[in-house]
This record gives sequence, C-alpha cells and structure tokens, in this order.
Amino acid sequence: MKNENQSFSRSLWISRGKSKVIQIIDQRFLPFREVVCDLNTPEDVIRAISNMQVRGAPLIGVTAAFGVYLTLLHFKDNPDREAHIEKTIRKIRQARPTAINLKTAVYLQLNAISGLSNYEKKIEVAFQTALKYMDTEIEACRKIGENGLPLIETLYNKNPSRPVRILTHCNAGWLATIEKGTALAPVYLAHEKNIPVHVWVDETRPRNQGTRLTAWELSQAGVSHSLITDNTGGFLMQQGKVDLVITGSDRTALNGDTANKIGTYLKALAAKDNGVPFFVALPSSSIDWSLENGDKIPIEKRDPDEVLFIEGLSASGKIEKIKIAPDKSMAENYGFDVTPGRLITGLITEKGLCKANRKGILKLFPEKSGL
Amino acid sequence: MKNENQSFSRSLWISRGKSKVIQIIDQRFLPFREVVCDLNTPEDVIRAISNMQVRGAPLIGVTAAFGVYLTLLHFKDNPDREAHIEKTIRKIRQARPTAINLKTAVYLQLNAISGLSNYEKKIEVAFQTALKYMDTEIEACRKIGENGLPLIETLYNKNPSRPVRILTHCNAGWLATIEKGTALAPVYLAHEKNIPVHVWVDETRPRNQGTRLTAWELSQAGVSHSLITDNTGGFLMQQGKVDLVITGSDRTALNGDTANKIGTYLKALAAKDNGVPFFVALPSSSIDWSLENGDKIPIEKRDPDEVLFIEGLSASGKIEKIKIAPDKSMAENYGFDVTPGRLITGLITEKGLCKANRKGILKLFPEKSGL
Repeated sequence: MKNENQSFSRSLWISRGKSKVIQIIDQRFLPFREVVCDLNTPEDVIRAISNMQVRGAPLIGVTAAFGVYLTLLHFKDNPDREAHIEKTIRKIRQARPTAINLKTAVYLQLNAISGLSNYEKKIEVAFQTALKYMDTEIEACRKIGENGLPLIETLYNKNPSRPVRILTHCNAGWLATIEKGTALAPVYLAHEKNIPVHVWVDETRPRNQGTRLTAWELSQAGVSHSLITDNTGGFLMQQGKVDLVITGSDRTALNGDTANKIGTYLKALAAKDNGVPFFVALPSSSIDWSLENGDKIPIEKRDPDEVLFIEGLSASGKIEKIKIAPDKSMAENYGFDVTPGRLITGLITEKGLCKANRKGILKLFPEKSGL
Repeated sequence: MKNENQSFSRSLWISRGKSKVIQIIDQRFLPFREVVCDLNTPEDVIRAISNMQVRGAPLIGVTAAFGVYLTLLHFKDNPDREAHIEKTIRKIRQARPTAINLKTAVYLQLNAISGLSNYEKKIEVAFQTALKYMDTEIEACRKIGENGLPLIETLYNKNPSRPVRILTHCNAGWLATIEKGTALAPVYLAHEKNIPVHVWVDETRPRNQGTRLTAWELSQAGVSHSLITDNTGGFLMQQGKVDLVITGSDRTALNGDTANKIGTYLKALAAKDNGVPFFVALPSSSIDWSLENGDKIPIEKRDPDEVLFIEGLSASGKIEKIKIAPDKSMAENYGFDVTPGRLITGLITEKGLCKANRKGILKLFPEKSGL
C-alpha cells in the first residue's frame, strides 16, 4: 500500500477497490521493481509463501490466515469441499517449515471456525479473524517499537556525539511483518524521534534480504545505513563500531533459543565476545509454546541454486540471474540457525522486554504457563 | 603452469620460452576463464597485486620478490635509477597493506642486493633471490601439508565410516601460494593418500574467493566439497557436521593473533563454541616477528563496489557484473579481521604444529627469539 508520498510502507493489504482481494508486494522483485500482486486463491497463497513472494515470520502468518479464508471461499461450491479444505489448509501450514507463525495463524483460524455450521458464516468469520489477527500483529509491532526504543535512547544519552550504531541481520522490517517491523520497529521510532541512528545491514546471503529488502526499506525511510557482507559484523564489533544488535525471530522456544535467518548465531557469538547487547524482537506469535528448547525446531533446506546463482540489475537495467560458481561445484543451502538463549541479552516483545529464558518469557506471558 | 593433464596446479612460474618472463594466472577471471598473464614491468607487478590478479599472502610475497627484480631490470638504463628504484619498491611494498609477506619479501631482496656495487650482478642476485624465495615457499607449503596431515588422519581413524569434514574460509590453496597451498595442503595430501575428505567451502563475500577459487581448485583436483554461504558454518558446527576448520593467514603476530580474510573470526568463535578444532596453516613468512599481538595489524578497506556489484556468468556464457543493491544504499568493505590467538587451537607451519601463542611460536622458531 502506497502512502501519500507514493512509497510503500506496508507489505499486505485488502484491496480498496475490489472488496476482499488480498494484495501484497511481490518481494522477489525488490529493490529493482515494485510489483503488486493479487492473492485470489489458496494456491496463490501457498505459492506466495513457498516462493518467498512474502517472507518474514509475522507476514507469512498473516498471509496464511487470509489463506484459510480464501480456501473456504474457493471450495464453497465444491461437492467434496471438506476434504479439499482439509488438504489445502494442511498445505498452507506446511508451505515453509521453520516459522511458527504459519501454524499459529492456521490453528487460530481453525479454532475460530470449528464450531460453526453455517458455511457463509464460516467464510465471514475466517475473514474477520484474519483481519483481527493482522491488526493484532500490527499493534504488536507498534508496541515492540515502543518497548525497544528505550534501549536506543539509553545508548544515545550515554554518547550523544555520534549516532547509535545498530547491526541487523536479514530483514525484520515492515516487509517482514505488515507495518513497522520487529527488529526495525525501534529503529524507525528512534529515527522519527530524531535520535540519530546508523544501521549496519548484513547482506544476508544467499537471498540477500539485507541488501535487497532492509537497505531498500531504510533508504525509503531516510534512515542512515551501510551495507556490509555477512563476514563483517564481528570485525565491526571488535572495533567498537556496533552499539547494539537487534534481529527478528522465526521461532523462539520457551528457553529463549531462537531460530532466525542463518548466520544470526555467528553474530550472537561475536556480540557475546565483545560485550555488545544482542536483542531479538518478536511478537508473541513467534513463540512456540510447545517447545522447551530450540533443538527440535525444523530447519528449512532450500534449493542449492540460491547459492550458485545470484540476481541483480545489469548495466542495461534488466533483472538478470548470473552463475557465480564453477560448473562442477554443488552447494548446500540451509535457511536458518538456532541462536541459544544464553547468547541473547533479551527479547523485545509487545508486552515488554524480558530475559531470553523460560522464567523471563512466562513472567511476561503468565497466561501461557499452564500450557 | 599446466601439468600433463592440461589443468593448472601452479599460480606463478617463469616462462620456459622467453627467459625470465614471470607468468601468472589472472585470478580475476576464474573460474570462468583461465587467463595467463605476463608480468614484464614493476608496474605490471604493482597492478597485479593491488587489482588482485594475484592474491593470497604467500603468492603476493613471491610476486613482490620478482617485482624487485623487475624493478632493477626496468630502470637499468635510467640516469636517475636509484630514486626510481626506491620509489617503485616502496610502491610494491605498499600495494596491499595487511599481508606481511609483501614486506618480508621486499626486505629479503633489499638485504640480498644492498652490498653489491655491480648493477648487472644486482639484477642477477635479485632474480636468484626471488627464485630461491619462491622455492622456499613451495617447500614450506609441502611441509605444511605433511605436518597437517596427521590431524586429518587422526580424525579419520576415529570415525572411518565417513569422510573427514573440513571447513575452510577464503582461498588458501595453490592459488594463494605457488603450489599446494597452506590450509588446503593437508587436504590435498589426505586426498592423495585416499583418506576421504569433504570440504565445506565458505563462499567468502564480497570477492567470493571460496566460490571462485577454492571450489574451482577442489573441482580440478577431484576433492569432494560443497559450497556454503558465509552464514552457514556455525550452523554446520552446531549440527556436528564439521570435524576441523583450517584457514590461512595474512599476518600472524607473536601471540598467535591472526589477520585473515574477513569472517575468519566468526568461524573461530563458532568452532570454540562447538569444540571444533580450529587451525591456521601458514609459512613462517606470514609471521610478523615485530608484532607482539594483532592490535596493530593494518586492515585493508576496499572499494564499496565490491559489495554493491557481483560478477558471474550470464545465461549466454558472458562474464557480467550486475548490481545487487538499491541505488541509494552505500556499503563498507573491510578485507580482513583479526582472530585472537585464544580462539586458535594451533598453527600448522613448515616446522611443525604449535600453540598459537608466543611460547609455542618461539619454540618452533628459536632463531627469532632474539629479534
């Protein structure tokens, strides 16, 4: 959705013109093209999630919620609709394995519609539930911004002669959520409040979400930043050039262990080694209340071609994919790693900050302690 | 130099046909083209080192040694030759800042020719000194292979049911030296001795020496390997999929602190956190005997375009450079980081293995303890 300045600041919305059509920015084309894409069918949703037209744990959660609504709508007149719906919703839930938000959203929907016998009512409830879930996620990100802001303010007050230098990995901005972001929410809020910040943007190989998405988001918002290779963050910390690390989360276990984009663990180790605070910003929809620790989080293995080829803009302005590896070499491509809670200074959630451990998390979310 | 199978296995040689012309593989074109390039003048040498037609600490040392010889040859008939020679040799020494081998080689040459009054003799001595230095470096790499081999053998004997899985960062093979390599020398020797190995090759952004050089070298030699992004090594160690890490060194201080390609430090942290042995393989020409620790090692800052653009092969087989970042985003590009000696399990040198500390190093090189 473009704001009055005609720049996007939201990753998914309900089309104003045609009622109830879900629209997204197709993130595969950023930063080179701003392509808007309609999601009309459950297949559109499954494809959008698995092809990473949408990505980022909170955003794929919301997309999946609307996917359940579209599934009900799509099979409305199908004589064998119950079987189709069950199969399709399972596909949505399994479109990507690591982020828990997908499952959270689907279960929320199934719970909302389970008691209803009127099919039209089911459709309407699913739509309203998805809308409400989206609004909850937007509000969570807004609160994450507010709750994380004091971390940046405190660092700035300690040394007002220079910007607060924040390192982030992958993209946990509004493109990964719906609005504002998780890791970037406090950064945007600091920028709005005229607290000078500078963001070190890890390029985040192999899909370069840092280069392609975070740098683009920050450019659009006018936030000072520098792209760095994923190899660089440790060096910058050794040099005292990083004041704070904030990343997102794809799934956080009860003990604080956090699956996030691969390479996050290496930055957490460097932060620990250099005494740099390392925070994970996440809505509670990214907490897996069923997991005591991160050992059982499934780690997505992706197409080796993502490592062997890379996409960019040619001199003539065309989007091109080039091969960067020797012909005979193969690659292995894992999407996530798990950062142990012991390396995380704290979590920034919609309910406030907490330690990255069972006690800290359950103190913020006491209603979950009976689960 | 191509061997009987017409594949290269050496990075620099003296042309057989035309006497005393130095030839190199222009590494900027690998793995896409195998381009051989003549170094006829000192300017050729300075350009080759600073443009990274040759790279890798031991190789740029040897190239610099021949550069001093070419300098003497080039200014032979110049009336103001002493001033030109001094200025040119300084340029050679400063062609890149981090690797100590450049300085080591230049000082060796200056020392060899300093007492000589006959200019023809100077030229001949400089050539012979460069040749001898090259042979010393080749022999050092051979010995590094032999000295490192038992590490791999021991791991294999512990678990003969699978290959020994070795992670390396950047390129420290024969392309970085003259023959065999430093980090890869033990790997090649194990492979020759039919000890099954599998190499995890860090792609090594931004210049992708892992993808472009190490993977190519290993392909040529038929050594099993997988390319991985620089983000992946920590995850593989967490999963128990790395038995050993070996990297090269651009400069090692007396306490073992080692400057190597940026990102090495992150892998050393992950190795420590997971109990994986982390070795640095280096000829003694890469030890800076004047530095007590790594704090004063100068770290090269390079062109941001190396991060913003990337080169590869288009679908039509053309080498192309594409832009991978948004137009408004800038980058910072540091070439090296310093891995503290405390994170290094040991050094593999031509004299044997030692601890990465003052005592260990001086025990292997007692002749240096008076320096």
